[in-house]
Amino acid sequence: MLAGCQVGICGVGLLGGSVAARLSSRGMTVRGWDPDPEVLDFARERGYLAEGTDSPEALAQASDLLVLAAPLGQLGEAGRLLAAGSGEALKGVFDVGSSKVAVGRELAALWGDRYAGLHPLAGREGGTVRRASADLFEGCLCALVPFPDTAREVRDLGRELGEALGARVQEMGPAEHDALAAWGSHLPLLAASALALAAEEGRREHPDLPPLAAGGYRDGTRMAESPPWLLADLWETNGVELRRALDRYIVVLEAFRDLAPQDVWAWAERAREARRRIMGEIPGRWRA
Amino acid sequence: MLAGCQVGICGVGLLGGSVAARLSSRGMTVRGWDPDPEVLDFARERGYLAEGTDSPEALAQASDLLVLAAPLGQLGEAGRLLAAGSGEALKGVFDVGSSKVAVGRELAALWGDRYAGLHPLAGREGGTVRRASADLFEGCLCALVPFPDTAREVRDLGRELGEALGARVQEMGPAEHDALAAWGSHLPLLAASALALAAEEGRREHPDLPPLAAGGYRDGTRMAESPPWLLADLWETNGVELRRALDRYIVVLEAFRDLAPQDVWAWAERAREARRRIMGEIPGRWRA
Repeated sequence: MLAGCQVGICGVGLLGGSVAARLSSRGMTVRGWDPDPEVLDFARERGYLAEGTDSPEALAQASDLLVLAAPLGQLGEAGRLLAAGSGEALKGVFDVGSSKVAVGRELAALWGDRYAGLHPLAGREGGTVRRASADLFEGCLCALVPFPDTAREVRDLGRELGEALGARVQEMGPAEHDALAAWGSHLPLLAASALALAAEEGRREHPDLPPLAAGGYRDGTRMAESPPWLLADLWETNGVELRRALDRYIVVLEAFRDLAPQDVWAWAERAREARRRIMGEIPGRWRA
Repeated sequence: MLAGCQVGICGVGLLGGSVAARLSSRGMTVRGWDPDPEVLDFARERGYLAEGTDSPEALAQASDLLVLAAPLGQLGEAGRLLAAGSGEALKGVFDVGSSKVAVGRELAALWGDRYAGLHPLAGREGGTVRRASADLFEGCLCALVPFPDTAREVRDLGRELGEALGARVQEMGPAEHDALAAWGSHLPLLAASALALAAEEGRREHPDLPPLAAGGYRDGTRMAESPPWLLADLWETNGVELRRALDRYIVVLEAFRDLAPQDVWAWAERAREARRRIMGEIPGRWRA
């Protein structure tokens, strides 16, 4: 099914560029559109794209498989532009956004049984096409998120696409996806950003702080390097689940606050065991 | 001053073992004591120690420079045992604990002008001698923490010792050290452990969570792999400063909770800038 597809990538950033690089390296014909013409030039020069198109409509016309990789908050608008150009030849449409319920509802309204969500859980600091690579998704988990109307063949196509990226594909519903992602991915992003802001306040009081920030600060705040629109879009599209996770996190921190020193050891031990249990089950790629 | 010293390491774990490995590799004579005889055997076989001693008292007798690398909560007791054996030849005593005010007060009471704190900010998961290495402290910051009575020569000796470990030495007072470490190091540890516990609660509700925990979860909880006694000891010995940092962190999270989606972008952007400012000033070793 996937073999022979004319693939169109809308939004050629880190994720879109990496999907393009992977599929092109496997001999597929990949076209792309991006609001930034320099991005298209770069992706063509690198061989990620066979060609760039002049508009989303032109991209949709030339494609029978569409991958929407615009920022989460722009997927709805990108979808409307693409839908205006897509015809009967279109076999499947997939978005790679990190939340699914709200965005998927919009995209399913445009494409009905030809749409499914696809979320490869991989990323990298400095999220532009310049950091893209064909192996970005190697060994990661890719959530395949069908909607009620998604056709059987489109689910199969999505699975084939995820596997072509090098990922392990797991199917789940949109609400389930968003709840799981809130805990496993969106809350860590929020916590990292809050830790960076808290440390900045500490730094105002203690200008000599930075030298004493070591590996723990670096790792604990790494996700704060994500593009700022991401957290805003997640709060907009997955606010209920993310707030639920945030509230639990605050409760855990508040409970810690009231612990006697002799109880902290057991608390820290439970935390370490909890981490190990989840680390033991996450995709191998992330265990190092 | 350092050259020719007979060095004694009390507590041969990750830090003590790495100090021993480093100094031995530079031709110094290093002895060690540890409550676990197998640890001493391992350290001798690896060449980290010239010999193990039978007791802290015997170690002190054979040393004119002592490095206390027991867990933070056992440094006071270790100090009392060592002091019973140490004589006039002793030139300097340094502990490598991660908080200084409370522990240093005890050690300064035992050794007066011959004591100073030394805190090389480096670590590694799996904190035992089996993970020790001579280059653990390469490129890290080492806080040199003199107390009011510390002799000039002992400060110089501490600086020489920190530099011999490959670290950049920065002198600061005990209260300043503990405040800075609370923000830059102890809060990230606490936040990581709390994130692991919160995710565990999420997992009880959503057993399928682990596959969706990716790099953000891994990095954000990495510090939760620290030995559980560490957080307990920090809460005991640096509770006031750590609670202050924790309270600010909770305030930041609570404030986020009430943000409108359109304000989250600016918030996340401030967080990213805050991270970059501190990352730009932390020791090169931790920037990757």
